[in-house]
Amino acid sequence: MADLLKKATEPELHRGLEGVVVDETELSVIDGSIGELRYQGYRIEDLARHADFEEVVYLLWNGHLPNEEEYREFVEEMASERAVDEGVLQMAETLAASDEEPMAALRTLVSMLSASDPEADADPEDIDAARRKGRRITAKIPTALAAFDRYRNGEEPLDPRTDLGHAENFLYMLTGEEPDEVAAEIFDVALILHADHGLNASTFTTMVVSSTYADIYNAVTAGVGALAGHWHGGANQDVMETLIELDESGEDPIEWVKNAIDEGRRIPGFGHRVYDVKDPRAKILQEFSEDLAEESGEPRWYDYTTSIESYLLDEMGLGEKGIAPNVDFYSGSVYYQLGIPIDLYTPIFAMSRVGGWVGHVLEYQADNRLIRPRARYVGPEDREFVPRADR
Amino acid sequence: MADLLKKATEPELHRGLEGVVVDETELSVIDGSIGELRYQGYRIEDLARHADFEEVVYLLWNGHLPNEEEYREFVEEMASERAVDEGVLQMAETLAASDEEPMAALRTLVSMLSASDPEADADPEDIDAARRKGRRITAKIPTALAAFDRYRNGEEPLDPRTDLGHAENFLYMLTGEEPDEVAAEIFDVALILHADHGLNASTFTTMVVSSTYADIYNAVTAGVGALAGHWHGGANQDVMETLIELDESGEDPIEWVKNAIDEGRRIPGFGHRVYDVKDPRAKILQEFSEDLAEESGEPRWYDYTTSIESYLLDEMGLGEKGIAPNVDFYSGSVYYQLGIPIDLYTPIFAMSRVGGWVGHVLEYQADNRLIRPRARYVGPEDREFVPRADR
Repeated sequence: MADLLKKATEPELHRGLEGVVVDETELSVIDGSIGELRYQGYRIEDLARHADFEEVVYLLWNGHLPNEEEYREFVEEMASERAVDEGVLQMAETLAASDEEPMAALRTLVSMLSASDPEADADPEDIDAARRKGRRITAKIPTALAAFDRYRNGEEPLDPRTDLGHAENFLYMLTGEEPDEVAAEIFDVALILHADHGLNASTFTTMVVSSTYADIYNAVTAGVGALAGHWHGGANQDVMETLIELDESGEDPIEWVKNAIDEGRRIPGFGHRVYDVKDPRAKILQEFSEDLAEESGEPRWYDYTTSIESYLLDEMGLGEKGIAPNVDFYSGSVYYQLGIPIDLYTPIFAMSRVGGWVGHVLEYQADNRLIRPRARYVGPEDREFVPRADR
Repeated sequence: MADLLKKATEPELHRGLEGVVVDETELSVIDGSIGELRYQGYRIEDLARHADFEEVVYLLWNGHLPNEEEYREFVEEMASERAVDEGVLQMAETLAASDEEPMAALRTLVSMLSASDPEADADPEDIDAARRKGRRITAKIPTALAAFDRYRNGEEPLDPRTDLGHAENFLYMLTGEEPDEVAAEIFDVALILHADHGLNASTFTTMVVSSTYADIYNAVTAGVGALAGHWHGGANQDVMETLIELDESGEDPIEWVKNAIDEGRRIPGFGHRVYDVKDPRAKILQEFSEDLAEESGEPRWYDYTTSIESYLLDEMGLGEKGIAPNVDFYSGSVYYQLGIPIDLYTPIFAMSRVGGWVGHVLEYQADNRLIRPRARYVGPEDREFVPRADR
């Protein structure tokens, strides 16, 4: 009885913090019931169609879309900050030589960037300094990542070009060639689509870290760490690996999926805590996947995804249960058709999401409060210490 | 009216997650009303007096204190894993040469450790692999940190010794000399006192990161990042810097504190979200500070702290408001009297807290749930996209 009473007065347990509101934000809003995502009030479809990644990052950090002058200035600042220190390149080479995973390499490289930041000693409560540091990190991530990829392929890294946009320059540094217009545009839109998404685990991580007034390099490094997990950013790689496995099996996609489910496998890329219907980002990426398939004359990746989607939703009735394709389900095959190595998909997600991370850190620090929850203790009651010899 | 109704049905805002229970744990429990801290049911005072750091880490990871055989095996494993890769030493040298902050250097070095982990490719859901990786990180942090400190002093790093305990070996690697028994014992106890403390911001960070199934290197790197903030681990350095400032002023400590408060300054080392009375860890460290003062015949640091404490609590009445000295208030002067550089205090905190981080990650992953809260959207309502030229 005493136990029951105690239970009744105990605070509720919120594992996973599902539905727990921890902050107010102006950055993005999701209506999961109708599949709508907006950044600062703008529909993601409009931003994808009409803006570029730099404009969207500016929007997330400043609350409004830039006019021509603001845009030019921001693009120039970002472009001028792309180059990384010689030490960072050496590190990329060392990590490539030791076969480090790209996300782990990116985490170490981002962490190392602080050592050459001109404002490394700035007061961590100085939000303007945090904004400039955040901009430098955002500008340099593609350079560090492309250098790592080139080293592991036995190639020298390329200097970033300031005459190309953020997305275009990354593809250039990766491949050594200027991407064609379609590839550059699709990749830019993919970055826009991944830039912010409420308080996902990596964004929340950056907020918890910076709530101690640890500086923004700590926050972004931690964000990369959280994004690496296959329940978060790592899912886009899982999807592509699944599609390749299906392809190599030579089986009919529907039969293959049926068997996989019968064997108790989870098909990655479906379901999302905040959407009951299809993720609006998935719809846009699906269109790109179709365009790329038509352009190349190789429909299989697009066909696999649409077959799986219609089987799971219509035949298996997942749609009625509120389980629908998420952004990861269609991003994988788009990147694959753009020729990007599979293990760079999650680092590319980081390259984009850093926009949201920095935005949320700046917003939270403007009215900072240390994030420190509680746990319910369920361990042993008072234990008496016994010396080692008597245990 | 509609707004008022909407407000009333909106979920509550939990900024800072104060009092929000997010998990069940067996690791540690704090009774802030009486100033009690227990690890797995054992009073912190008993562990400080009778156990060593390795025993406490074993306790946190296994739920029971080791018997002689378990202890010997664990100590040997930890000792055998102390050495770091040549690449990590080179990195420590590079970071020292670029004057990197020790906490930022530690973050990068810990992140880099994954590249040489023999189980780098282990399934991130494999808890046994996570435990072994966590042990390696814990074993290697002192080596990486001491190497960094020696490089920045123009000295070569020392190989770790396997015949010394965790605390003793660190002091040896730092100074090149085996510490005397008192210093080794006090340092070991300081590590025990900092090893776990419920869901503080850095521990919670490691849980959020690993809840995505990002591997434990991601979690610990992020934990170092969160601990760096001066509202968390960074506070012990702030305390010592304040005491030195007071010392250099030549003023009476009480007068100095009075003036500082009149000027609106916050005195670091007081108040803690989970304690209404004096932190039990502060009491133990205070005794050490007194012992060290007596031993050396230099009472000033001990005197400053006790003067400030009694003034703030008794004269200013902070005690009645539930504001009392926390662990950071007395750890600073203890480390100072042990001759440890001030900017290593927070990295030393990390060297200890990694025990708690790993323990909580292992515990949480055994029944994992993605940590993904929500934010209340307070940004602009639907905005129509306007082309850049027209803004």
